[in-house]
Amino acid sequence: MDLATIIGILGGFGLVIVAMASGGGLTWFLDGPSAMIVLGGTLGAVLINYPISDVLGVIKVAKNVFRGKTQQTGTVINQLVEMSRISRREGLIALQNMISRTKDPFLTKAINLVVDGVDPIHVSEILETELDFIGERHRLGAEIFTTMGNFAPAMGLIGTLIGLVQMLKQMSSPGTIGPAMAVALITTFYGVVLANLVFLPIAGKLKTRSSQELLLKQLIINGILSIQSGDNPRVLEQKLLSYIAPGERRSRFYRDSKDKATNG
Amino acid sequence: MDLATIIGILGGFGLVIVAMASGGGLTWFLDGPSAMIVLGGTLGAVLINYPISDVLGVIKVAKNVFRGKTQQTGTVINQLVEMSRISRREGLIALQNMISRTKDPFLTKAINLVVDGVDPIHVSEILETELDFIGERHRLGAEIFTTMGNFAPAMGLIGTLIGLVQMLKQMSSPGTIGPAMAVALITTFYGVVLANLVFLPIAGKLKTRSSQELLLKQLIINGILSIQSGDNPRVLEQKLLSYIAPGERRSRFYRDSKDKATNG
Amino acid sequence: MDLATIIGILGGFGLVIVAMASGGGLTWFLDGPSAMIVLGGTLGAVLINYPISDVLGVIKVAKNVFRGKTQQTGTVINQLVEMSRISRREGLIALQNMISRTKDPFLTKAINLVVDGVDPIHVSEILETELDFIGERHRLGAEIFTTMGNFAPAMGLIGTLIGLVQMLKQMSSPGTIGPAMAVALITTFYGVVLANLVFLPIAGKLKTRSSQELLLKQLIINGILSIQSGDNPRVLEQKLLSYIAPGERRSRFYRDSKDKATNG
Amino acid sequence: MDLATIIGILGGFGLVIVAMASGGGLTWFLDGPSAMIVLGGTLGAVLINYPISDVLGVIKVAKNVFRGKTQQTGTVINQLVEMSRISRREGLIALQNMISRTKDPFLTKAINLVVDGVDPIHVSEILETELDFIGERHRLGAEIFTTMGNFAPAMGLIGTLIGLVQMLKQMSSPGTIGPAMAVALITTFYGVVLANLVFLPIAGKLKTRSSQELLLKQLIINGILSIQSGDNPRVLEQKLLSYIAPGERRSRFYRDSKDKATNG
Amino acid sequence: MDLATIIGILGGFGLVIVAMASGGGLTWFLDGPSAMIVLGGTLGAVLINYPISDVLGVIKVAKNVFRGKTQQTGTVINQLVEMSRISRREGLIALQNMISRTKDPFLTKAINLVVDGVDPIHVSEILETELDFIGERHRLGAEIFTTMGNFAPAMGLIGTLIGLVQMLKQMSSPGTIGPAMAVALITTFYGVVLANLVFLPIAGKLKTRSSQELLLKQLIINGILSIQSGDNPRVLEQKLLSYIAPGERRSRFYRDSKDKATNG
Repeated sequence: MDLATIIGILGGFGLVIVAMASGGGLTWFLDGPSAMIVLGGTLGAVLINYPISDVLGVIKVAKNVFRGKTQQTGTVINQLVEMSRISRREGLIALQNMISRTKDPFLTKAINLVVDGVDPIHVSEILETELDFIGERHRLGAEIFTTMGNFAPAMGLIGTLIGLVQMLKQMSSPGTIGPAMAVALITTFYGVVLANLVFLPIAGKLKTRSSQELLLKQLIINGILSIQSGDNPRVLEQKLLSYIAPGERRSRFYRDSKDKATNG
Repeated sequence: MDLATIIGILGGFGLVIVAMASGGGLTWFLDGPSAMIVLGGTLGAVLINYPISDVLGVIKVAKNVFRGKTQQTGTVINQLVEMSRISRREGLIALQNMISRTKDPFLTKAINLVVDGVDPIHVSEILETELDFIGERHRLGAEIFTTMGNFAPAMGLIGTLIGLVQMLKQMSSPGTIGPAMAVALITTFYGVVLANLVFLPIAGKLKTRSSQELLLKQLIINGILSIQSGDNPRVLEQKLLSYIAPGERRSRFYRDSKDKATNG
Repeated sequence: MDLATIIGILGGFGLVIVAMASGGGLTWFLDGPSAMIVLGGTLGAVLINYPISDVLGVIKVAKNVFRGKTQQTGTVINQLVEMSRISRREGLIALQNMISRTKDPFLTKAINLVVDGVDPIHVSEILETELDFIGERHRLGAEIFTTMGNFAPAMGLIGTLIGLVQMLKQMSSPGTIGPAMAVALITTFYGVVLANLVFLPIAGKLKTRSSQELLLKQLIINGILSIQSGDNPRVLEQKLLSYIAPGERRSRFYRDSKDKATNG
Repeated sequence: MDLATIIGILGGFGLVIVAMASGGGLTWFLDGPSAMIVLGGTLGAVLINYPISDVLGVIKVAKNVFRGKTQQTGTVINQLVEMSRISRREGLIALQNMISRTKDPFLTKAINLVVDGVDPIHVSEILETELDFIGERHRLGAEIFTTMGNFAPAMGLIGTLIGLVQMLKQMSSPGTIGPAMAVALITTFYGVVLANLVFLPIAGKLKTRSSQELLLKQLIINGILSIQSGDNPRVLEQKLLSYIAPGERRSRFYRDSKDKATNG
Repeated sequence: MDLATIIGILGGFGLVIVAMASGGGLTWFLDGPSAMIVLGGTLGAVLINYPISDVLGVIKVAKNVFRGKTQQTGTVINQLVEMSRISRREGLIALQNMISRTKDPFLTKAINLVVDGVDPIHVSEILETELDFIGERHRLGAEIFTTMGNFAPAMGLIGTLIGLVQMLKQMSSPGTIGPAMAVALITTFYGVVLANLVFLPIAGKLKTRSSQELLLKQLIINGILSIQSGDNPRVLEQKLLSYIAPGERRSRFYRDSKDKATNG
């Protein structure tokens, strides 16, 4: 469970709701038709913009936002260094026994290719293509939320313009302007809240998540190719440790690592 | 028929029309001169911006938005793997018989080049250039709609400014301000609706469609070059399957594929 | 003469003028000082922004917007294929006779370099550098119009702020607010109209024109280098035809071309 | 201590506070709920947008903004030239004695790799990867502040819309509009001030700092690789001096350097 | 002296001042506190954003805006062609005599490196690094002005919000609203004028200047490397003339140059 997302949503919405309630009544801000035009209009624009399969796929992707980080980069580095040592002692075929112990399907696929004796050039090409398309699918998910974040305030503006025109057309006494204009403004309010507390932050989180996952997979590709070319496990470890922040580095070889430095 | 586009347009416009009708009369929002200035002004700006042939070409391109996905990537991969096996057994000339069975003109052209014995470097160069220019024509279509989406609200603003100036010039009693301002706001309303429920979402859909088509053509190029260089059909299949999402992968070689993984 | 530009300008401005006239008098929208501050201010900002020679050069460039497409890509491809056949039969020196028949100075220069026996590496370098700088000069022209399109609404806002301050300072009775505010809004109106019906669309057209011209010159470079390296005229034709849309392709070799496909 | 940051914050806020106090009372601008919705909402959106560890890490990063430049590029160049001379006379192993004298952990790591006899290709790969990820961590810090700078005015707008709706709903006499609207505007004021005097300038400073640090580290990589390949110390110095502005160049070899030129 | 900048500033500001004076009194637009908050706030934000040395350096850079073009590209090409002929006849050492005749410190440095017999790879590396950092320093100057152009209107908005809150808090009779609001709007006016008639155009001019200077230096690098590799002076001239517009080309070899073409 990703705590930050929960705190952010509860905190952000909580403060907005408190502010709405404190100055009058919460019901002043509830308006069915306004919600319908902003949510429905945004969904409509997104459905014109993307194939229906991609829009439905977003629901699956959005769940990732609430899921905690599942894999530790450090663990994967340890596995790769271990595999490097095994393959140097017992040959690449011996990595077959590692497959059952890996949970990451990408790593499993990479080991399979190496064990099957596929040429390094093809291993690299297959894994890089796979990585590109995983990145592409992630990017699409974040992009759909960004698009929703851009359309929502526009739909709010459309709703407010409808309200304003209706108000101005039947304006008789100045006393009735206030409440009518309040209703007109509610769609803009909905659009701005949805964009800035829901759609855009979720798009941001999906991008951050994606780059973490792609980084880990890039590290796996580099590690696997290094293993296949028979690199020294120590050099491999140093290469892979460069991928993570100095504070998180735990070497198998240097217990009191002189590598504790390189902050920045 | 692309269902998402239909649902999106009907849903989006339906909600806007319901909102317009519910608060008063739909006729309040109908204004011929306003529609003329927004639509005509946008078209005028686009005609200055692009050659007339490109603007007319957009109509042909826009039809793609309502067309469903015509080709399955999986089918093309199967064809390429089949071609790889045939060419390994019977030589590249034997691919001639495949031409009648392919519907994709790009694939047909690619097979023709291979059968004609054109050098791989030239095959790659010709097909990549062709791909670049298909991409360029797609990009132009999406760009014209994006440009319309940018000009429409500006034309709405121009119309509103004209209305405001006219209203302010002959302002006598405060009672007449309301209806006059309502009319002035209608051009802004038209501009924002056209941009956000028509032009920008269509531009988005054209971009999505284009990248799907270009991806398929890139896959064909890689497959054809792989066949020409005599790659193993299994390796070819693994390379091409990396292009599609794991859920859609169907291997000819591994029935209960261990490749079901690599989600993300 | 480029018809689209004429129709766009007449149509766009026509509609705006009709809208201005229909609601009152056209003279309501004529205001000398407002025009001066928007046009003069925009020109002033552009003169600070660019060297005076570049700003004056824009006038020459802007004429291109009204000029029709002068060269047919198909004609140039035919010339290059013809040259390829001649040079294969009679040697590169024989291309000298072609110079008098080419109207494009870039093609003339390219043939001259080949006839002079300049090394292919230098031919490529000289022509690519030339192409880069033609592109750079085009880009500058479009950029200046884009800059004017960005400054014009800002100057309109400056004029409106001046008008508002003057109106508010001497505001006595509410009855005088209307006409004064109408005048204040006219600068914003001028700025938005100039940007969206003149400067930005012209910048767009210059970009489109430039990319068409650069594409033709890139095609010439590829063709000339191909001729110099003695490529087969048929392969050359296929390479160059990839540059244009399938509908416009006319092969010298395949009358009923199987190449009619590859739409998209 | 970075003086510019202190002056900028004190000066900017000082002027804003003076302006607030001079026209009335400072307390007019103090509003707890407004501060809560802008600060809390921005923090909430950022927590949804980024993993909690990254948001907490920002505090550590933000301190860099107030820290002066710690390292002189000139000093590092001198060290590298000195190391180049030592390694040419006494071999690469002799660099071991330099480690205790270097304070920069990145330089320490680089020397260690060279002394350990790691292959130049791996040295380059390890240090470049390390550099990429330091840059990535810096970029994330600046990006979070930019995101806060984008969300803060949006939260201000949300607060103002809440205030406006509440005001309009209970609007009875025109006399009460003024103070209520003043309160509604305060959240927008908070959002704009926070964005433009705190978040965006800090993001800018972090970017500037980061590029200075990355430049220094890139210089170290180039220097170390040059030392490892046994380049002449004079050539090394000339290469490294090109990294800094001419005014700051102090050569060990040319006392009255003819290199004082190349301004621009 | 760069005439365009002078005309632009005098013309732009002149028109704004005429507009301010014509509708009332110039003094209506003079407000000390408003000027202080916009100028001071912008400077404050810039000081947080950039190291103090960079902000002070901007003053030196800004003077370039008023300086005319100092060097003719044609002159430099002639010098390089002359040098090419000398070095072919008398050897690279003979270029030593050219140093006293060159005024450009970058060219002087380049000749020095060649005369010193530095390896072409190192010459290229040193000069390209130097070029990168000159470009980086130019870019920073333009970026600081762009940043000022972005912050100035935001500071204007902050000032206007302060004025609006103060006005609304003490609003008693409608008659006092006008003048108070006029004062509030003046900060926005200052911010928009400063951004669009000072900061942004200066940033634009610095960018244009920079690209001209970098182009000339790139031409010098290409020329020097060509001389070092012993290229034919005629080929060298043709390569370098491609860098400038056809109209400015003066060949030493072809008096009635057939190269007069290639417009575009």
